Amino acid sequence: MKKIISLVAALLLVLSAHAQQALYGGPQVESPVINADGTVTFRYQAPKAVKVEVTGDFLPTVKQEVDFGGNKMTVDMPGVGVLKEGPNGVWEYTTPFKVAPEFYNYTFHVDGQTVLDPNNVFVNRDVASLTSVLLVPGDRADLYTVQRVPHGSVSKVWYPSATAGFDRRLTVYTPAGYETSKAKYPVLYVLHGIGGDEDAWVTQGRATQILDNLIARGEAKPMIVVFTNGNISQEAAPLENSTGYTRPTMSLPQTMEGTFETSFPEIVKFIDSRYRTIAKKQSRAICGLSMGGFHTLYITLNNPDMFNYSGMFSAAIGTGSEQTAAHKEIYENVDGKLATYFSKKPALLWIGIGSTDFLYQANVDFRAKLDAAGYPYRYMETDGGHIWKNWRIYLSEFVPLLFK
Amino acid sequence: MKKIISLVAALLLVLSAHAQQALYGGPQVESPVINADGTVTFRYQAPKAVKVEVTGDFLPTVKQEVDFGGNKMTVDMPGVGVLKEGPNGVWEYTTPFKVAPEFYNYTFHVDGQTVLDPNNVFVNRDVASLTSVLLVPGDRADLYTVQRVPHGSVSKVWYPSATAGFDRRLTVYTPAGYETSKAKYPVLYVLHGIGGDEDAWVTQGRATQILDNLIARGEAKPMIVVFTNGNISQEAAPLENSTGYTRPTMSLPQTMEGTFETSFPEIVKFIDSRYRTIAKKQSRAICGLSMGGFHTLYITLNNPDMFNYSGMFSAAIGTGSEQTAAHKEIYENVDGKLATYFSKKPALLWIGIGSTDFLYQANVDFRAKLDAAGYPYRYMETDGGHIWKNWRIYLSEFVPLLFK
Repeated sequence: MKKIISLVAALLLVLSAHAQQALYGGPQVESPVINADGTVTFRYQAPKAVKVEVTGDFLPTVKQEVDFGGNKMTVDMPGVGVLKEGPNGVWEYTTPFKVAPEFYNYTFHVDGQTVLDPNNVFVNRDVASLTSVLLVPGDRADLYTVQRVPHGSVSKVWYPSATAGFDRRLTVYTPAGYETSKAKYPVLYVLHGIGGDEDAWVTQGRATQILDNLIARGEAKPMIVVFTNGNISQEAAPLENSTGYTRPTMSLPQTMEGTFETSFPEIVKFIDSRYRTIAKKQSRAICGLSMGGFHTLYITLNNPDMFNYSGMFSAAIGTGSEQTAAHKEIYENVDGKLATYFSKKPALLWIGIGSTDFLYQANVDFRAKLDAAGYPYRYMETDGGHIWKNWRIYLSEFVPLLFK
Repeated sequence: MKKIISLVAALLLVLSAHAQQALYGGPQVESPVINADGTVTFRYQAPKAVKVEVTGDFLPTVKQEVDFGGNKMTVDMPGVGVLKEGPNGVWEYTTPFKVAPEFYNYTFHVDGQTVLDPNNVFVNRDVASLTSVLLVPGDRADLYTVQRVPHGSVSKVWYPSATAGFDRRLTVYTPAGYETSKAKYPVLYVLHGIGGDEDAWVTQGRATQILDNLIARGEAKPMIVVFTNGNISQEAAPLENSTGYTRPTMSLPQTMEGTFETSFPEIVKFIDSRYRTIAKKQSRAICGLSMGGFHTLYITLNNPDMFNYSGMFSAAIGTGSEQTAAHKEIYENVDGKLATYFSKKPALLWIGIGSTDFLYQANVDFRAKLDAAGYPYRYMETDGGHIWKNWRIYLSEFVPLLFK
């Protein structure tokens, strides 16, 4: 009897594995592998394939000219590594260089079809695309890794939006100790880019790990962090809408035409009513990437008594979206609004951009305007373009400057 | 100038799309599509492929004999649909039947390699496997869908585990109105299966949608719901551990040998200290699937004054794991513990299992024991085996019975 029972125990494991094998499995290889010498090996099993490539941001970028309606522009495109076929149809590629610590995205191309790494369950969604994920620890990437430090809580909460006419979702980080303390906390609002949502900074941005680690190191003050959804026509991230499972898209309505900016005070009001916040300018900060940098600028300028710290990460300014805005007033009289804003002596306007970002010139122009008027700001320029690697760096640099 | 600016606006979109195309893209087809007649079409573009199949739980299962060390056992395996190649290398399969409302998993097999649907960004992780996800709305699946009803908050919180010696993560659902009310709430603890974690019931189980919808319909009481991680050697789900990005596995240590069951009161104590709970037996419930059903049984029996409602979903009892347990005392004297438990007149012991579950006989035997002693319980038998479809049904049936 005892023998039969433990057979069943073994079966429990084997059958589960077997059923999964049939549904999801196929032959398994180990991929990716961070080798002892710091290189990384990618493997893909496809005995009948003719060509297998890997692409991702761990590879050096390649310059490519893009033609858009007669306008030619040189952009950075991800490099490509070519896998070679070995025994049993296992294709393999090892980087000819040490891969630096970072949180990377990659995919395979198999005979022209883009596929995820079937042997890596870690994936990220960025707007409408999935990629496999590789975390190479060390250096700055240690900030992006869960460490054995006190962890904040990360909550998905819904606020009633009078502007939208329905409830909308936020991600809210409360720092370790919030629940057991009676203290009030400063608040940082963090905004995503076009096509993103309230999940983006937590998944792609590793923001809650960055916060946990900076606070644990004593490099940042404990703070509440609110990740908004800047697509005012949307309740929440694609999976979490009452519209069901619809395909995510970059071209959502009402994203850069003033409605979200106009609605922002209702979010601040909700957070101040729901959490133990220090509900005043001195203890409020806002930052955002790309479209979120654009939002940050105009929310700040239109509410000059609301934020003491503002961070524009690769801000999508100068794109002309203001010209056709539903709420033109948000974007009008920028010079006057800048004068008012700076007359109130905000603690920090922070600007960060990559040297090859296609928004680089627009940010040069904006800084020239600030310089001409003698307005103070802090500036950080990094390598690379319009990429998450830069946005994680900017957040890690911006957060330690807050609420000091 | 105006023209150039709006060109840049267009570029912002086009370049982002272009960069994504290179990194993730390739040609796009629409898949899956729920057709007007209720059938579903799956498409996969692969001009050089020889054979493309789709498999998943939307297809009828197929009986298959599995040989395990001379022991033969018939199990349900997922069916297979064969795609036919059409123009431009687009392979296509349409179900010859209406696909019933449900939350399904599926993958493609392309020349023997299992891949996700590249045109569907919705994926679920189950232990160490990813699958594409299809939600067919209607009927019971409306419970699994986000509806325009008041939403609870879903939080990832960490509790200090004296048993483990480190902080561990929980998912906590607080119902709509919790934050603005001063009321105290009953608590339901929900446990996952082998290889799962504190994310499983929320992603695969759609538990927070089920709770939101049952409460909004008035079919369930507002309650706090705690999703534990039953792998006591683990801090959190694979992505969220200080061990970094390690490959998830089913064979974690210390899962069915008593340590987690022994530690459970520290979780209840934490929740009662952190949330506005009604901290007594009458307002506490526990349930779990597979390994979590096994945990539920023994946590209940060893703490007869803790839970008034217990639900065993496809419980992995009778597997013999008790024989080699570190904490044998948890599994000893079951008859005596059952007598004590029932002498205290719990409100509900609920048992659910699928008629083709490989744990069916173990559950028949357990019910026979209860019947012989005249102990009361409620029983639900469904079609199918050891699958998430059944566990979502069991949760939806169990929750309305609580705290009435």
